[in-house]
Amino acid sequence: MTDDSLTHDSAPAAPQKLSRRGLLGLAGAGVVGLGVGVAGDRGVLSATASAGGSTAGGTSYPFFGEHQSGIVTPAQDRLHFAAFDMSTTATRSDLIELLQDWSTAAALMCQGKPVGEFGAVDGPYDAPPQDTGEALDLPTGGLTITIGFGPTLFVDASGADRFGIAAKQPTELTELPHFPADDLDAQRTGGDLCIQACSDDPQIAVHAIRNLSRIAFGRASLRWSQLGFGRTSSTSTSQVTPRNLFGFKDGTANIKAEEPGKVSKSVWVSSADAPTWMAGGSYLVARRIRMTIETWDRTALSEQEKIIGRTKGEGAPLSGGTEFTAPDFSVLGRADKPLIDADSHVRLAHPDSNAGSEILRRGYNFVDGNDNLGRLDAGLFFISYQRSPAQFIDIQMNLAKNDLMNEYIRHVGSGLFAVPPGAKKGSYVGAGLFS
Amino acid sequence: MTDDSLTHDSAPAAPQKLSRRGLLGLAGAGVVGLGVGVAGDRGVLSATASAGGSTAGGTSYPFFGEHQSGIVTPAQDRLHFAAFDMSTTATRSDLIELLQDWSTAAALMCQGKPVGEFGAVDGPYDAPPQDTGEALDLPTGGLTITIGFGPTLFVDASGADRFGIAAKQPTELTELPHFPADDLDAQRTGGDLCIQACSDDPQIAVHAIRNLSRIAFGRASLRWSQLGFGRTSSTSTSQVTPRNLFGFKDGTANIKAEEPGKVSKSVWVSSADAPTWMAGGSYLVARRIRMTIETWDRTALSEQEKIIGRTKGEGAPLSGGTEFTAPDFSVLGRADKPLIDADSHVRLAHPDSNAGSEILRRGYNFVDGNDNLGRLDAGLFFISYQRSPAQFIDIQMNLAKNDLMNEYIRHVGSGLFAVPPGAKKGSYVGAGLFS
Repeated sequence: MTDDSLTHDSAPAAPQKLSRRGLLGLAGAGVVGLGVGVAGDRGVLSATASAGGSTAGGTSYPFFGEHQSGIVTPAQDRLHFAAFDMSTTATRSDLIELLQDWSTAAALMCQGKPVGEFGAVDGPYDAPPQDTGEALDLPTGGLTITIGFGPTLFVDASGADRFGIAAKQPTELTELPHFPADDLDAQRTGGDLCIQACSDDPQIAVHAIRNLSRIAFGRASLRWSQLGFGRTSSTSTSQVTPRNLFGFKDGTANIKAEEPGKVSKSVWVSSADAPTWMAGGSYLVARRIRMTIETWDRTALSEQEKIIGRTKGEGAPLSGGTEFTAPDFSVLGRADKPLIDADSHVRLAHPDSNAGSEILRRGYNFVDGNDNLGRLDAGLFFISYQRSPAQFIDIQMNLAKNDLMNEYIRHVGSGLFAVPPGAKKGSYVGAGLFS
Repeated sequence: MTDDSLTHDSAPAAPQKLSRRGLLGLAGAGVVGLGVGVAGDRGVLSATASAGGSTAGGTSYPFFGEHQSGIVTPAQDRLHFAAFDMSTTATRSDLIELLQDWSTAAALMCQGKPVGEFGAVDGPYDAPPQDTGEALDLPTGGLTITIGFGPTLFVDASGADRFGIAAKQPTELTELPHFPADDLDAQRTGGDLCIQACSDDPQIAVHAIRNLSRIAFGRASLRWSQLGFGRTSSTSTSQVTPRNLFGFKDGTANIKAEEPGKVSKSVWVSSADAPTWMAGGSYLVARRIRMTIETWDRTALSEQEKIIGRTKGEGAPLSGGTEFTAPDFSVLGRADKPLIDADSHVRLAHPDSNAGSEILRRGYNFVDGNDNLGRLDAGLFFISYQRSPAQFIDIQMNLAKNDLMNEYIRHVGSGLFAVPPGAKKGSYVGAGLFS
């Protein structure tokens, strides 16, 4: 490997530079023996690491575009979600630089490339590698990286407008209301920023969050994070409906990418909505929902189906038909009781019960070991995207008050984030906030 | 769906029955409204659930055989590992029945079948489903289920021979010695029994542990459990070498299934070894190794490679060649210092440094969220199989004392288990203990 391979690589034109701060973050400022000069003076990141980029192949989605990827993108199988807090000393320009650096690095990783030079004997051998390396031999894996802003980014808990963006805060971007039976853990709730990394390979999703956390060094740090191993919703008609940890098919009636009318009505913020910098964006709700699966597993099948409102095997509504038959809430059975219980999950979550409100769900199953009583710490990491948080709030308030399922679930974490539109090539996610 | 489909199914001959206790465990003994009569009286589990078994297809490995699967089986991509403790009231016959039930259920799941009737309106509709259902539509996924016995199963902490098997305890099956810098968490250490579930689909591995935990209800309960998302070793020459979270290829020199001489010398307990019931079995060591990846990531590439003894990109030994070139510890570089440091991981773990001892590694990467300082709780869930625990102990004592890597890792969980040979069809794992 000679220097030629670094200067004459055949990769696409290098995107933006990482900032000097980003490079220092990557390279570990202040560590003894660090070749800061080497790393900093090189400036431009080589898009092809000298030790070889990721294996070509696999599905890939563009990072730049009208909308951020990872929303209507066919839901990948695995998730690493992370919420960050800005450091107490961070300034407006730090935030801008961080978003620029994240965008640069994310665009590289979505192409299956390392976030920076990986190192070679003739390169920054005495500096830390700029990419952590665990995804080096892997394909692109359908990686998407989706960035969002929490309410506290605009106005912090003390009421301060730390980054000069308070005037840009969407009216609807406030803390979610307290829902009945909410049992939120502050350590799993909120955050100034969030990143959703989805991939068909968990190592690729983990690699993305890890490297974006490193890049944030000194400017923002992880507040909480969650891995999900199995998608619980389809966002495309091309996908088989998956099952959640109640063993039921989930997301049958979800909004699909192939329904442009529903997507533009219910997912994307329109240019007619305020604020204008959010046009083409969406609002992300995350809820960590612990399922008491041991109790559920001792519940009769008849009761499980009554709670869900669908059959467990086929996923058909209890009013009849097959999985994709629309539920008919008017069909009565024995003793003139509706076949689909009035307090079943499918009925309460249905648009007909919520003034037409719909949301795009994109959740994941999780298991995080077990508790001291030998119960799996398992459940659903719920993610939804909607044009307005009000859509989620209406549905969730209805569910939290009435859903038969509440006996078997507990909401223990929560977050609401404004997800700006996609960035144009050469720009960065959230640029509209600062113009 | 009529009763005919239950009695005239075309599946292979139903294996053993689950015990009445197993069915009760499955069905949730003591829950109001439980149709115990229905479930218990039916007796034989239908191998094809009335709501449809898993989708055919995918790799499958036999549960029954000379050796348990999941040891020299090509390492699957995902892991759910669980350690169990017997309940304080459990008897010898409870233990036997549990092992029978686990074997029956494991054999079904390895064929991609649910562990029992899933339920139908004309079946046990008013009883809980005997399978939790979240793997219903999934293929076999290369599932293997490997069962092991901890030292405390033979003689408990108070010195009691609770199950009448103390005389059968292998001399070598005792607590592992304390290694320098061990920082073990009792909540992640030990256990009377263990189950390793590996699959290429995490939902399938999780489904297996969940259902085996349910079956154990009242007899044994989860002590600790661990998900792993990325294999860190190849156990077959047909596999690409994966990377651990240090970003290095791992397992290049691992024992491979295609090396029968090494496998029989170093993995399987021989019929000449004591005790005879272990012949064809192996010893499993599990270590939860937390990596301080944030510190590692700020370490120069040159230092990382010195610590490992291999290049990061290619995985070649620092003495030259390519990934599969044997390391040459005698090659000297500048100032007559060896190119591969005497305290490098590759050198200290090498058979030449351990009187020829080799182990078969089968570990997984993990990330379990992050700590309060914003550091990912990440690392390697190390699993190894060896003919004798002494092989692991020799190597680990050497590493724990000298390995340059120790600055970046901390062993926080540990377990040693005797993994009996595979069961014959019609018998169960561990039968040799009770004959």
